[in-house]
Amino acid sequence: MKEQTGKRIVNGLDVRKLKETIQAIGKTSSLGDFRFRIANEWQGGGLNQSTVKASSGAGQQFQERDGKFTMQADEPPILLSGDKAANPVEHLLHALAACVTTAAVYHAAAREIPLDSVESVLEGELDLQGFLGLDPNVPKGYKHIRMNVRVTGDLSEEQKRKVVQLGCEFSPVYNMVSKAVPITVEVLG
Amino acid sequence: MKEQTGKRIVNGLDVRKLKETIQAIGKTSSLGDFRFRIANEWQGGGLNQSTVKASSGAGQQFQERDGKFTMQADEPPILLSGDKAANPVEHLLHALAACVTTAAVYHAAAREIPLDSVESVLEGELDLQGFLGLDPNVPKGYKHIRMNVRVTGDLSEEQKRKVVQLGCEFSPVYNMVSKAVPITVEVLG
Repeated sequence: MKEQTGKRIVNGLDVRKLKETIQAIGKTSSLGDFRFRIANEWQGGGLNQSTVKASSGAGQQFQERDGKFTMQADEPPILLSGDKAANPVEHLLHALAACVTTAAVYHAAAREIPLDSVESVLEGELDLQGFLGLDPNVPKGYKHIRMNVRVTGDLSEEQKRKVVQLGCEFSPVYNMVSKAVPITVEVLG
Repeated sequence: MKEQTGKRIVNGLDVRKLKETIQAIGKTSSLGDFRFRIANEWQGGGLNQSTVKASSGAGQQFQERDGKFTMQADEPPILLSGDKAANPVEHLLHALAACVTTAAVYHAAAREIPLDSVESVLEGELDLQGFLGLDPNVPKGYKHIRMNVRVTGDLSEEQKRKVVQLGCEFSPVYNMVSKAVPITVEVLG
């Protein structure tokens, strides 16, 4: 999957389809409007579960994805729960790593740059004084996220840096975490 | 789990331990320093997998969590991959929902407010023109996230709103997504 197979498959992606997608959205911008949805349910203590709901995009509804995937979150014993799953801030690191990798792989494919591997290690520093409300000056979230990325393939060091830079530049999650996203919260009665 | 059991368990959490944790970190702030880590590996196309690594906090290392959980991410066929898992921006919604729910439940427990249920539905609007580099003025991430939360329990409407507000105010992921977090990226040779 990770190798070029001769035709137009780069990084496991059909480059012709990728370019057709780019052209179609470039021509009809409304095709680029996507909606992603999940539903989450508390299961007691620090445990809760999300279910992916139907998404939409490119003028289509993807009803077949409704309920297809579930993800749990929990907290370890030091944070008073049963450690049945990664915790929310670990899930955030997963979302970030997954998104930067995917953006790097897709943008490399669009430029017909084949990659052998992409690996990353992420660490987030969190001062619990923020979450616990002990010090209003301490950020509630990570103070800092460190991400080390290794790309291999028949590439120069500069090309490897370029691939990672493309990943960060175009990754939706990287952009959301490093900038600010408006969130509207409604409490249902 | 979700019910009070008489003693000091509220919302499935040991309130005495929760208060001891708050006091201990209030007294020795360095106990609040936590580090969470994951490693991610590309698996071809839009598919990749994260593994939770050992975390640390409260002056301890949690080596037993090293490798305990894996999470995959993939993209649906419309986005050119095999749809083997939720995609990165759906994982972000999961992290956000999980974190707001957990923060609401923990902060309610600390105030000895028992909850029966917490459910939320989240939707993110994403314009693919950003990710594809078609329009530099279009955000790469969600333009907007909508979150509807329903809390049930023997609570007034005002108390329900207060519980959700505590969840948002103290949730690390809510704070990270609605504000900005510095991310340092290093490309390994």
